[in-house]
Amino acid sequence: MHGFAFSTEVRVRFAETDAQGIAHHASFVVWLEVARVAYLERHAGGYRAIRDKGIEALTTEVCLRYHRAAYFDETLTVWARCGDLRGARFTYEYRIERDGELVADGYSRHATVDRATYLPTRVPDWLAEAIATAEASSS
Amino acid sequence: MHGFAFSTEVRVRFAETDAQGIAHHASFVVWLEVARVAYLERHAGGYRAIRDKGIEALTTEVCLRYHRAAYFDETLTVWARCGDLRGARFTYEYRIERDGELVADGYSRHATVDRATYLPTRVPDWLAEAIATAEASSS
Amino acid sequence: MHGFAFSTEVRVRFAETDAQGIAHHASFVVWLEVARVAYLERHAGGYRAIRDKGIEALTTEVCLRYHRAAYFDETLTVWARCGDLRGARFTYEYRIERDGELVADGYSRHATVDRATYLPTRVPDWLAEAIATAEASSS
Amino acid sequence: MHGFAFSTEVRVRFAETDAQGIAHHASFVVWLEVARVAYLERHAGGYRAIRDKGIEALTTEVCLRYHRAAYFDETLTVWARCGDLRGARFTYEYRIERDGELVADGYSRHATVDRATYLPTRVPDWLAEAIATAEASSS
Repeated sequence: MHGFAFSTEVRVRFAETDAQGIAHHASFVVWLEVARVAYLERHAGGYRAIRDKGIEALTTEVCLRYHRAAYFDETLTVWARCGDLRGARFTYEYRIERDGELVADGYSRHATVDRATYLPTRVPDWLAEAIATAEASSS
Repeated sequence: MHGFAFSTEVRVRFAETDAQGIAHHASFVVWLEVARVAYLERHAGGYRAIRDKGIEALTTEVCLRYHRAAYFDETLTVWARCGDLRGARFTYEYRIERDGELVADGYSRHATVDRATYLPTRVPDWLAEAIATAEASSS
Repeated sequence: MHGFAFSTEVRVRFAETDAQGIAHHASFVVWLEVARVAYLERHAGGYRAIRDKGIEALTTEVCLRYHRAAYFDETLTVWARCGDLRGARFTYEYRIERDGELVADGYSRHATVDRATYLPTRVPDWLAEAIATAEASSS
Repeated sequence: MHGFAFSTEVRVRFAETDAQGIAHHASFVVWLEVARVAYLERHAGGYRAIRDKGIEALTTEVCLRYHRAAYFDETLTVWARCGDLRGARFTYEYRIERDGELVADGYSRHATVDRATYLPTRVPDWLAEAIATAEASSS
């Protein structure tokens, strides 16, 4: 049991492969973002809604461990969960699988800022509550 | 004689290759942009200067013909020239070479818009003159 | 009536946007490829099947006209049709729409080569027939 | 004193920015690779030479902390050092600066495999020695 309730799927694009014949490792970083966007759409009205409310979420850290190569046209499942909300900061954890087999895992950290000033601003209560509800229902 | 006076160099990044073992065809579109930015830096105070003056240049068309494959770590020369300025529109032509051999050629069309309204706005005189001077000196 | 029978959808990723706040024009080139891969999967057993049979399809030309900007998180419909098969060459035409509105259109040209030698090789009959059948049923 | 002897420069491309108006965080992962390629060219005959000798270096982990945003057209200095060679594994550490100011730092881990079998293979002695010499001369 890996404890993730949310997942989304990505299909490896040919443009995301490299001359080693595998998905380039930077492509995975983009897939994590795709998963965050899908997560927020499911649980918090969407990332655009957050931006429309004057908040921008910056990425402050990303870490990925690659366990197996991924190949062109494969469908990967990106599991994601959000937590560790404190003030303006929160963390996502990820697990990327192919047919239940671990391909990569990692985490990213984020900070919310005011879109006008780019100064740190607390994660708004409605968003914190939406995430808390989402994660509570999954455990 | 191919009639280009300006060129810049790009080095093929590993991330720009694909599982065919060659530079992915979409990477070339980015290199054209790198060449435009370098061209404007040389001739018109830089693209940032243009943006700082409240103008945004949109890409309205791009066409590329690929004559030979490009490979990881190769140095390519991107020749570029600008012309056909009319109102809010202008065109770039390109020729990408490796050691004098044609790798790709093409063109892109652009339109200047006001950064605040995104409505079309004439290419400002100072920019049109800088480009005219640059191209006159090259012919 | 635009005469396309096949389409696939793409969702604009945040990583595909640029500092103009819109989808970067090179992202569209990748979406055309996503559409070709989906087209071949529907009609010809998939692009991987083609590669597994020792054939590689190179891109020899790509042209795109951008009519409207596309924005983060929008769902775009990429219409694609294949035709003009002659020897080792074929052409795709595209129309990218958002809610029925034209965002971009264009075409790409391709050549089939032998995966071992990278010499041109005729589009195999089974593939030509699969495409002919697909396009005949759509008209 | 940060203890790095090798650096290379990257210029932020417009295609590498996103709708937040800054360089997208996945772009940094590509820049680390650009730095590794430049490092190997300086110290070990180039990455292509390594591939030509039948060895492929896979990325098994990448971690980045983003301290400041980077913007279009900025020149960034990517400091890199290699170490921790054990069997088939080695590590790079990085520090990305703009005018001496820390923009991001991180590390990546790699494993060498045989290009034909993709099985782990020890880092060859000539490469280990080239790296040891490079790093010894820098401390």
